[in-house]
Amino acid sequence: MTIEEITARICAFRDARNWMQFHNPKDMAVAIAAEAGELMQHFVWKQPDQIPEVIQVKRAELTDEIADVAILLFELAHNLDIPLTEAMQAKLDRNEKRYPVDKARGNNLKYNELGA
Amino acid sequence: MTIEEITARICAFRDARNWMQFHNPKDMAVAIAAEAGELMQHFVWKQPDQIPEVIQVKRAELTDEIADVAILLFELAHNLDIPLTEAMQAKLDRNEKRYPVDKARGNNLKYNELGA
Amino acid sequence: MTIEEITARICAFRDARNWMQFHNPKDMAVAIAAEAGELMQHFVWKQPDQIPEVIQVKRAELTDEIADVAILLFELAHNLDIPLTEAMQAKLDRNEKRYPVDKARGNNLKYNELGA
Amino acid sequence: MTIEEITARICAFRDARNWMQFHNPKDMAVAIAAEAGELMQHFVWKQPDQIPEVIQVKRAELTDEIADVAILLFELAHNLDIPLTEAMQAKLDRNEKRYPVDKARGNNLKYNELGA
Repeated sequence: MTIEEITARICAFRDARNWMQFHNPKDMAVAIAAEAGELMQHFVWKQPDQIPEVIQVKRAELTDEIADVAILLFELAHNLDIPLTEAMQAKLDRNEKRYPVDKARGNNLKYNELGA
Repeated sequence: MTIEEITARICAFRDARNWMQFHNPKDMAVAIAAEAGELMQHFVWKQPDQIPEVIQVKRAELTDEIADVAILLFELAHNLDIPLTEAMQAKLDRNEKRYPVDKARGNNLKYNELGA
Repeated sequence: MTIEEITARICAFRDARNWMQFHNPKDMAVAIAAEAGELMQHFVWKQPDQIPEVIQVKRAELTDEIADVAILLFELAHNLDIPLTEAMQAKLDRNEKRYPVDKARGNNLKYNELGA
Repeated sequence: MTIEEITARICAFRDARNWMQFHNPKDMAVAIAAEAGELMQHFVWKQPDQIPEVIQVKRAELTDEIADVAILLFELAHNLDIPLTEAMQAKLDRNEKRYPVDKARGNNLKYNELGA
């Protein structure tokens, strides 16, 4: 199933409820950040050795939060006439230039911290 | 292009750089929330009548932030063995039950605030 | 009661539980962002005319979330040896220069958008 | 200097610029979450052994972001007629009951995960 097909379902769901009036870009960005916060909330204070337990015990909640963020994100991109697939490809193209394999391999430096 | 195909490219990008060591679920959730915060940052303090200008003037930045969130989200779902398409469909199924058209139409109440 | 006095109580609470081992600056910043997300969550999708109802009905929750953010923020500043009172004063000093009254009055432009 | 005294300065700064019109509780909660996101952004992807370098190299930025969150938080509490000092004390009182020393000492379990 493509991003476009899921997005069509999301927009049909919204329009059947006449919710476009609430889905301005600001409120959507706020909702995305709030849902991303809920996703992160499951990991707050967790030590590295506790993460496997979190992803096992909270699997349903994590799945739910990830879906929530994705549903809002697909719709926002659509509302802004941003083709999400192309935007992601363009960003990956850029990241491949910003993070050349020989310099970025095995470290987590930002692209502007990688030496010449 | 499907979610699975883009996800394969994202994982290939990551693995060529040996970055899986940094991409534990907690750090990915933190990164997603931070990027969602950057997306929201463009709308802080903006009044409704200023939003059209934001989405015009900041189009490149918004596209970039949306792509960043999506790239991280696709990878996190993959790393957790969560099939994103199915998770989104399941959430939409649930939302269709939680928000029946006749009760949810035209209002922004939460499902647990919709009267019987 | 001063910021310093409350901060002393926060640190005593933490130390009695031997929690400093968990309170590294990264995990504290993550916790602050997560709690700020919970505070924001109460306003998601709310229209301007619905905000008065939110702040009335959710008064206890909002008070709680604000206190949570403040408690973590006071401790983080303390752990980083950042005198919070001085940091706030210094930021207000800077904002007074960045946002001169005659240019900033009545608009919500960013300091770098205010004309010369 | 007390929280009340700093809050008075914050409100005077705001009122001299006639900004109360923008400072509704929703937009303030959004701004707080966005600033908390900026604070967290400095730690994204950082491994435990890299945190000391972050807090040394980014000291000015961290101080600035902490002050930003605090300034907004003090004003929001004031605007909502929430006495911040009392709210923090009340929350600490509650946390002392939720996390009794003998059960909470040395672990990071949530209060509802602490055994009877």
